[in-house]
Amino acid sequence: MKLPDFKKHKLDFNTGRENPPKKVLNNTSEGIKIKSHYNISEIKSLNFKNLVAGTYPFLRGPYASMYLKSPWTIRQYAGFSTAEKSNEFYKNNLKQGQKGLSIAFDLATHRGYDSDHPRVRGDVGMAGVAIDTVEDMKILFSDIPLDKMSVSMTMNGAVIPIMAFYIVAAEEQGVSPDQLSGTIQNDILKEFMVRNTYIYPPSTSMRIISDIFSFTSRNMPKFNSISISGYHMHEAGASADIELAFTLADGLEYIRAGLGAGLKIDEFVPRFSFFWGIGLNFFMEIAKMRAARVLWAKIVEQFNPTSPSSLNLRVHCQTSGYSLTEHDPFNNIARTTIEAMAAVLGGTQSLHTNAMDEALALPSEFSAKIARDTQLILKDKTDIIKSADPFGGSYFIESLTEQLIEKAWEHIKEIESYGGMTRAIELGIPKMKIEASAARKQAKIDSGKRIIVGVNAFLMDKDTDIDTLEVDNTEVRNSQIQRIVAVKEKRNESAVRDCLEELYTSVSNNTGNLLEIAIKAARNRATLGEISFAIERAAGRFIQKSRTISGIYSNEIKMDEIFLKAKDLSDRFAKKAGRRPRIMIAKLGQDGHDRGAKVIATAFADLGFDVDIGPMFQTPQEAAIQAAESDVHVLGISSLAAGHKTLVPEVLDTLKSIGRDDILVIVGGVIPKKDYGFLMGCGVAGIFGPGTVISNAAIEILNILMEAFE
Amino acid sequence: MKLPDFKKHKLDFNTGRENPPKKVLNNTSEGIKIKSHYNISEIKSLNFKNLVAGTYPFLRGPYASMYLKSPWTIRQYAGFSTAEKSNEFYKNNLKQGQKGLSIAFDLATHRGYDSDHPRVRGDVGMAGVAIDTVEDMKILFSDIPLDKMSVSMTMNGAVIPIMAFYIVAAEEQGVSPDQLSGTIQNDILKEFMVRNTYIYPPSTSMRIISDIFSFTSRNMPKFNSISISGYHMHEAGASADIELAFTLADGLEYIRAGLGAGLKIDEFVPRFSFFWGIGLNFFMEIAKMRAARVLWAKIVEQFNPTSPSSLNLRVHCQTSGYSLTEHDPFNNIARTTIEAMAAVLGGTQSLHTNAMDEALALPSEFSAKIARDTQLILKDKTDIIKSADPFGGSYFIESLTEQLIEKAWEHIKEIESYGGMTRAIELGIPKMKIEASAARKQAKIDSGKRIIVGVNAFLMDKDTDIDTLEVDNTEVRNSQIQRIVAVKEKRNESAVRDCLEELYTSVSNNTGNLLEIAIKAARNRATLGEISFAIERAAGRFIQKSRTISGIYSNEIKMDEIFLKAKDLSDRFAKKAGRRPRIMIAKLGQDGHDRGAKVIATAFADLGFDVDIGPMFQTPQEAAIQAAESDVHVLGISSLAAGHKTLVPEVLDTLKSIGRDDILVIVGGVIPKKDYGFLMGCGVAGIFGPGTVISNAAIEILNILMEAFE
Repeated sequence: MKLPDFKKHKLDFNTGRENPPKKVLNNTSEGIKIKSHYNISEIKSLNFKNLVAGTYPFLRGPYASMYLKSPWTIRQYAGFSTAEKSNEFYKNNLKQGQKGLSIAFDLATHRGYDSDHPRVRGDVGMAGVAIDTVEDMKILFSDIPLDKMSVSMTMNGAVIPIMAFYIVAAEEQGVSPDQLSGTIQNDILKEFMVRNTYIYPPSTSMRIISDIFSFTSRNMPKFNSISISGYHMHEAGASADIELAFTLADGLEYIRAGLGAGLKIDEFVPRFSFFWGIGLNFFMEIAKMRAARVLWAKIVEQFNPTSPSSLNLRVHCQTSGYSLTEHDPFNNIARTTIEAMAAVLGGTQSLHTNAMDEALALPSEFSAKIARDTQLILKDKTDIIKSADPFGGSYFIESLTEQLIEKAWEHIKEIESYGGMTRAIELGIPKMKIEASAARKQAKIDSGKRIIVGVNAFLMDKDTDIDTLEVDNTEVRNSQIQRIVAVKEKRNESAVRDCLEELYTSVSNNTGNLLEIAIKAARNRATLGEISFAIERAAGRFIQKSRTISGIYSNEIKMDEIFLKAKDLSDRFAKKAGRRPRIMIAKLGQDGHDRGAKVIATAFADLGFDVDIGPMFQTPQEAAIQAAESDVHVLGISSLAAGHKTLVPEVLDTLKSIGRDDILVIVGGVIPKKDYGFLMGCGVAGIFGPGTVISNAAIEILNILMEAFE
Repeated sequence: MKLPDFKKHKLDFNTGRENPPKKVLNNTSEGIKIKSHYNISEIKSLNFKNLVAGTYPFLRGPYASMYLKSPWTIRQYAGFSTAEKSNEFYKNNLKQGQKGLSIAFDLATHRGYDSDHPRVRGDVGMAGVAIDTVEDMKILFSDIPLDKMSVSMTMNGAVIPIMAFYIVAAEEQGVSPDQLSGTIQNDILKEFMVRNTYIYPPSTSMRIISDIFSFTSRNMPKFNSISISGYHMHEAGASADIELAFTLADGLEYIRAGLGAGLKIDEFVPRFSFFWGIGLNFFMEIAKMRAARVLWAKIVEQFNPTSPSSLNLRVHCQTSGYSLTEHDPFNNIARTTIEAMAAVLGGTQSLHTNAMDEALALPSEFSAKIARDTQLILKDKTDIIKSADPFGGSYFIESLTEQLIEKAWEHIKEIESYGGMTRAIELGIPKMKIEASAARKQAKIDSGKRIIVGVNAFLMDKDTDIDTLEVDNTEVRNSQIQRIVAVKEKRNESAVRDCLEELYTSVSNNTGNLLEIAIKAARNRATLGEISFAIERAAGRFIQKSRTISGIYSNEIKMDEIFLKAKDLSDRFAKKAGRRPRIMIAKLGQDGHDRGAKVIATAFADLGFDVDIGPMFQTPQEAAIQAAESDVHVLGISSLAAGHKTLVPEVLDTLKSIGRDDILVIVGGVIPKKDYGFLMGCGVAGIFGPGTVISNAAIEILNILMEAFE
């Protein structure tokens, strides 16, 4: 049998032999309808097509040859307890193929407290490294040459002392500011929306950002002065259009801040970088990254830049912690791999891949290596880096990208209509929109519409035990306190006082540059808390009001059987007790991640509970007293930052000491399995890890409450 | 600041602001140059463009709505020791969300031996389930209704008795052949190229295939009568163009076999299915799957089918075992995830994801669950199933697909020029091409050009210990023998003899249908070995000649430092010993996976060793005696099928009994770490797992040999 010559064989491809198949549509959280198949017709009406990577409007990537020219940077965000331990961990990672560092600070540092402050007893060294003085920072970078190492620092609230410590630590290594490369997060606007590690009110916060732009544009040409983060919105449950729009609207606001400080657009905007969270919606995440580049080019263009790099959005990505599960942690490797691929195919410049145990605890050396290796495998073992924007031209992805551009543009225009992002934040609008999106997602999961393998489907019979890292919080705190004492003993007190006074005056009179003054203070060994408090003394500390939204959870979950059962039980309780079951949701310590707490509050309200939300950053004592004063039946503590072993027992002790140990205490969030016994032993009535169906938790609680009335 | 209306803002996208960037080219193993960026210009010259999924030539997928209509089937290939244990494992997996079964048989079964045959002492129950009679098959499917369950069986050599047992087991469940759905691999041609589980010569083997086509097209309309496999070529080191071309050329040969048996093209070709191996070259694998569909449509078209489903290639995929590593097994989860995504984005109809410990041992329940969950996550947690062929229209992928179509078409034409695949196999051409491709790959890895994370780069300090599954081979064999005895005691011997005689005559006289006769034999409880031997008696058992290729490894590795050091050492040894170091490479038992052995042989020859290759399927005694007779210095045993704990000690015993325990015995292949101690204790001189750099192994061996001469 002879085969015909392939090339000569003409086929009429443009007229199908069958009728064009019917298209099925699939609704996304972004309100986009995805078609079951896309053909060439889809691409014809697009505005953004036939584009080239590395050229305006950069849809297909910031550089023409992308990863072939320079692969993305493997940048694992990490920090542990003390500067010594973190330094050791970093050096080990650098040996293992990691490029660049990414520093996680503990929550006390984020919120501007020294480790010896009584409010932060449960937070010191828990979710990152504790930094009190420039001496800590020097240890952190010991044997790491700062003129050669790109350093990314996740710091927003206490950005002034941290930048000052970094600059002085480098100076004492013999490295001048102009040699420093890296990124400071410095994105305070999103803190007011989702992460809550702000310290001062919005206006002072924006002044600080202007001062940093001004200082870095003059003295640190290789340093990215801001990393504008959608990541935290993503993790708080925002859909892709919201994450895109609010982040870019933040960027627009920072442009105005820089211009307001007298800078020219090309002097500071090229040092902006962005930060996306990447979840499991593979195509949506790729489209998001492509859309962002066009939108940013469009936004910056209005300010008439002359440098093309002002238009060119560069980005760091982190895989989603939200998508990880506590059950079957090894499945998290697959989840993270899928997300890492989306980040790379979307064209990221650097990437953090989550460790598989990040839903349980801080990453161990073992899990951190696997996370890093995932990137090495993608980079060195696949053909993924070989061509820029491989989805370019794809009927589906090009169409999805353009739809996302349009959705986000509408949101940006809405924010502008309020007068820009600062004003919109003051009105509470972005925070509310994100929380509504999160409540909808949770209801979808709880009703099983969204399947999570190993959580609400296909559970493993027994729990997998893996060794997770545990931090001895008390030991870390004691050693930090000792070092603070030692530093304070040796320093020139009056020089310190002068610097702090100068900071105070600079804020009060709106003069000078806060970072410049803080550098002097750091040289004189002023502590982080002292620098931060000098500013606070003049500006005040910002207190956010907590609001709950209602109806969203119940509207989404509708006729779900368990939901109805829980609602019925809460009605029966109300009849028996003479009032609705009442729960207070508290977040203790400096942990500002309030998505979980907010979602729980919304859901319980929809289940017929009276819900109180404690103010953010309460001490255990404050929470216990508020619970007693409000006469709640249940006090729910949400913990994501590993402080539970210190903070929860203090709540129980306080309740006991005021004679209200009848109040049920439950704990939710990221709690390693091995700590369950300890907490239950202390008197906790229930622990609800990630993946708990809220209605089930409510039923469990109500059953205990009912028993007390039998 | 007011933003302009987005839609109204006109941008001139078609004229870039910068010069078009220079393209960097990257050569692939397929001889394709990948450009660093692809733009719209690339797509203009393509033949296959603007296509629609579900319509001819099916480049974009066999169905219009693809996974939205029916997601791919999660089909995990598995089988363990006994029918009882496998049955239990299957039922557990089905409970956990798996659809469909995929049966792995042990090597004794593959090669047509009953468990009591002396040649298969080390093989029984080791790499799959042992099946001797229809009674075993009935236990295998106990409580699994065969009218409802799709069953895939990987069987090629002993396909006649296995199909007969399956049909009779169903019959005795009350299920008729027309109700059976599933797939039999039945692809004997590739066995002669790479996997070597053939029994009879090519001509008899092709007759068997015709008989199966003929029987199934009449009686089993829902059953796929063949699964034409590129997978094993992929695993043996073939590049994508070779895997594509040889597999489709096999398919072409099977079309001829069916037509030769008097069937009409539309009667049997719609029941063909294909099977790809999917490795880490993400884009190349996706392009391969798309290219295959076009090529198959083009091939079948020549035979003027009237049913569109004759033209429509459907495929099962398995992630690559070749890409897994023994070190850092948890990294294999990421590798498998990347590969699974390629399979899905390429449009597979079913998928096996490898367990992370498959480079060490058979999958455990724990690792099998993770592998299965990876697919569940992709299916249920991402948006990957939402649109057909998401790469459709992509400048890069469309261009890569077309180049691969052209490359493969040239290879197919070459095979045709020899007179088709059966003839090309007799000439040894495809086997040689695949082995050359494998030797090139190994040399690239050994010289570090290809980085394998955790193997030749970024090694973990200490080995990860995971619990792997171990099979007690002796116990399995004894229980199988007992069951054979029991079956033989109860059956009607003369009815059995009559059936076996009828099989013999059918082969000798080329009359009747072998499967039909075998079904009668199975009803009468003839054993697998008896049925197989009745055919062998008439057709003979095929013996393949082993050849080595030379120069390919050294040519690729060139001036690599370790290679030169090893070569120098082998020269020094030759000077001292008066002759070249001599090594015999043996494969013991029924394990036919000879890529490793062939690559090692090629590499050692290039390192200056005299190399003997033992014939396939030797017993331990035969191998030891050949090694002694050839007076080799070293006997290297390659083991991939878990028989090492039985077979290797027997080699050592035989060498000792003939006074030649001076011959160094080394072992390579898949050996769990926990067995190292046992083997070394028996007297093995060295163990080289997957990822060993061959030159390093040679240096180690030569050092021991040199010492003996000191």
